[in-house]
Amino acid sequence: MRNEAFLSTALSCLPTPKETEALCKRSLRLTGNADDIRTEVLQRAPMKKGDRIVLDFGDHQVGYLTLKLGFVGSHPDAPAWIRLQFAERPVELFESAEEYHGWISTGWIQQEQIHIDTLPCTLRLPRRYAFRYVQIEVLDVSSKYELTVENAICTAVSSADNADLQPLKTDDPLLARMDAVACRTLHNCMQRVFEDGPKRDRRLWLGDLRLQALANYETYKNYDMVKGCLYLFAALPREDGLLSAAIFLEPEPEADDTFLPDYSMLFVPALLDYYEASGDEQTLRELWPTALRQLEIAKTQLNGGVFPDCERLGWCFIDWSLELNKQASLMGVYLYCLKAGQRIAALVQDPVLSALQSRWQAGADAMRTCFWDDALSCFASGEARQVSWASQIWAILGGVLSEQEGSALLQRMERTDAVGMVTPYLYHHYVTALLEVGDRKKALSVLKAYWGGMVEDGADTFWELYNPKNPNESPYGGTIVNSYCHAWSCGPAYFLRKFHLDRDGQ
Amino acid sequence: MRNEAFLSTALSCLPTPKETEALCKRSLRLTGNADDIRTEVLQRAPMKKGDRIVLDFGDHQVGYLTLKLGFVGSHPDAPAWIRLQFAERPVELFESAEEYHGWISTGWIQQEQIHIDTLPCTLRLPRRYAFRYVQIEVLDVSSKYELTVENAICTAVSSADNADLQPLKTDDPLLARMDAVACRTLHNCMQRVFEDGPKRDRRLWLGDLRLQALANYETYKNYDMVKGCLYLFAALPREDGLLSAAIFLEPEPEADDTFLPDYSMLFVPALLDYYEASGDEQTLRELWPTALRQLEIAKTQLNGGVFPDCERLGWCFIDWSLELNKQASLMGVYLYCLKAGQRIAALVQDPVLSALQSRWQAGADAMRTCFWDDALSCFASGEARQVSWASQIWAILGGVLSEQEGSALLQRMERTDAVGMVTPYLYHHYVTALLEVGDRKKALSVLKAYWGGMVEDGADTFWELYNPKNPNESPYGGTIVNSYCHAWSCGPAYFLRKFHLDRDGQ
Repeated sequence: MRNEAFLSTALSCLPTPKETEALCKRSLRLTGNADDIRTEVLQRAPMKKGDRIVLDFGDHQVGYLTLKLGFVGSHPDAPAWIRLQFAERPVELFESAEEYHGWISTGWIQQEQIHIDTLPCTLRLPRRYAFRYVQIEVLDVSSKYELTVENAICTAVSSADNADLQPLKTDDPLLARMDAVACRTLHNCMQRVFEDGPKRDRRLWLGDLRLQALANYETYKNYDMVKGCLYLFAALPREDGLLSAAIFLEPEPEADDTFLPDYSMLFVPALLDYYEASGDEQTLRELWPTALRQLEIAKTQLNGGVFPDCERLGWCFIDWSLELNKQASLMGVYLYCLKAGQRIAALVQDPVLSALQSRWQAGADAMRTCFWDDALSCFASGEARQVSWASQIWAILGGVLSEQEGSALLQRMERTDAVGMVTPYLYHHYVTALLEVGDRKKALSVLKAYWGGMVEDGADTFWELYNPKNPNESPYGGTIVNSYCHAWSCGPAYFLRKFHLDRDGQ
Repeated sequence: MRNEAFLSTALSCLPTPKETEALCKRSLRLTGNADDIRTEVLQRAPMKKGDRIVLDFGDHQVGYLTLKLGFVGSHPDAPAWIRLQFAERPVELFESAEEYHGWISTGWIQQEQIHIDTLPCTLRLPRRYAFRYVQIEVLDVSSKYELTVENAICTAVSSADNADLQPLKTDDPLLARMDAVACRTLHNCMQRVFEDGPKRDRRLWLGDLRLQALANYETYKNYDMVKGCLYLFAALPREDGLLSAAIFLEPEPEADDTFLPDYSMLFVPALLDYYEASGDEQTLRELWPTALRQLEIAKTQLNGGVFPDCERLGWCFIDWSLELNKQASLMGVYLYCLKAGQRIAALVQDPVLSALQSRWQAGADAMRTCFWDDALSCFASGEARQVSWASQIWAILGGVLSEQEGSALLQRMERTDAVGMVTPYLYHHYVTALLEVGDRKKALSVLKAYWGGMVEDGADTFWELYNPKNPNESPYGGTIVNSYCHAWSCGPAYFLRKFHLDRDGQ
């Protein structure tokens, strides 16, 4: 199914990324190992077979690399053969595609082997990369010449313009840095659409879009780009109207065949957020039926008032965790989205409002009945009654607890061994929940501990996943396929700016 | 040093290769090993990680590959990562760059790793390859889709037009095939210049040019192309006027810093051959000083009437052999070139003629005095008095023996364990020497045994090197860097057509 009018609106709103030039700042030699990387600044020198150099562009870039290459010695009598490896973090350069045996496609590993038939030359690589570092390794030259790297330029692309961005005014250097890193993260994910990560997998994901849009409203304020993305989802629903979790843009817009019930429903608050930020009532009215349809479809899934649990991997997102039971969380998402739906229904004066109110009430009752555990004093999910942070967070966001109840619940959780949070995506919702229950100080301290931890671990942009106890952890089996500029992590720019958290002190 | 007027003439004479399209004829699976290759015709099918297919273009091609790629399954959610390996002979596909440890640059190995971000797509590879076979190996896709190869096209390039070519009329199918393979070899080496091999190393080499030009006069008759190449050498001499062994064309014409005394001197007969084929007296007159200069420089090298021997690797070419002592052969080349110089001097009425005659006589005397070995009844070269085919061949071509003496000498050589011939380049001069001494039948039988052997070993084009006892031999340590379309091997087209050898029967 394809709504051509929506698609046309979408495509007219999506921006063309602008190009800027970033120069290589210095050349490095990396030694040591993944856990103890030593960095030495190098003077660039002619390179023979086996030589390596790491070009450092000083900050995270998304764009196209141009190398000016030359030679010393005799006229090259054989092609130069080089390997390029692009890395967002130096640790990636200590891994190789050949040694990667995780389950994710190695097609994502940012490396190329290139033959250069004519020297000197200007080599512009046709693919886009996300990187701060580029390692050049000479796989071979001939014995008659050596390769020289004369210059390296990145033609960086983004739809975000830093000229539009006011810096966050704060005396706290960590907060200033966290905000800058968050803005850079968002900036580099803003391409033709809001990509999840410019390294991997570059798709427009609904749940990720919502968080990026929130940060965008406080920073680059590119409302049309959000509008375009919302219309894109609305243009490409499944036959029954369900929205896909993600959209591909190339070779032409097409919905992914991945469906996540939480992501589909989050279209509702994403639309509401957009209206509240932009005041664009026409879009609100035009996309409301699409949004409402997600809630209607969700309702048909209920069984005994709640969503049935499911064993299928990836049946629902919530957090990047295989361990997490998601049944209770999904119910919280439903309630949260019903609240947003009520707000929109009221705004557009849709008589469905009262039905949504009743559904929320019934859902909130079912949430308490089915998932609240009196003995544990928290929500427990699934047949095994699993206690997790996710369940509590989404219950609070779903509105089933009072401020005091919610605040007390979150404090109690800290003294449990509840299933924890894996991604900045769920941490974002944790901070939102803390703000929801009035715990501004705690929200700030979580921000500083978690996102501040990434900063202390050297982040130029915020990561897809972060375990403060093991910064190099990868659920994919290698940092080489981790995404270290991942838009769902740009929350600090939103929280610090929207809620002025820095003004509370610590 | 650079003669701009000569360079301008050269560039105006060099052709722009014409494009034609060649389609993939069939798809194969190769199994077995390098010494026992089994071939199975395949129906193309969707490919997942690790799958391979070999596209067979039916004949040797030089050109640019275009692949039309698609997918089956879900919309690709990760780039496809493929390895392409181009092979002139199937045996190359049983070797890999990683396992190659020879001394030649692995930059020559015709393979690429390519990432495909968008499917379906038309992928046109920017580099030129020499191949009949293309192996496509899927290094990775994701679990959600498989790659399909919808179509494969080679945009073949050559400056030779088969429409200009008369087929050789012969009832002998082996001779017909040898001629066709020789013509294909020449055709595929005729690009902007006469390349030595379109796979490797693609340069214009003087000694190779001379043999290609001879075949060209009997086949494609592209006189201007030879003229352009002669002017190119003449435009870019060393300061003292010595011609380089080879010329690079990119990024702009430049002489190689490799100098081979035999190659430099062979400019003289190359110029004479060109005049005799084309009748272009202006070029003969204009380039005669350059040609004469090679003989003058050679004369200054003589010591006691002969060229001093040399231990330095690659000091002189003669044959692709490290074992061969080249001192006597080089003297033969000098005499051969002096004879050509005399012919030109007579044609242009240059009074240097008598000096050249005296020099030849002195040289011929020195050749006999220094290298003829009465006890062995043949020429012996170097301090160790090495007996080789090369020394006898070049002595005959140098004109120091009568027909009868030469014929008897070559017959005697067959009963010795003289150092043999390695390349079709020296075999070409052997056949020329046989014709010189009137042994037409033997010339034909050598052609049939040697080049015919390559045909029987499956050659689509003639090879840089051929050892009938071990067709997969490589002096470079791997067939993967051998050149299997090498223009100095195109002799059969010249010999069969110019000398009508097929009319002698066997």
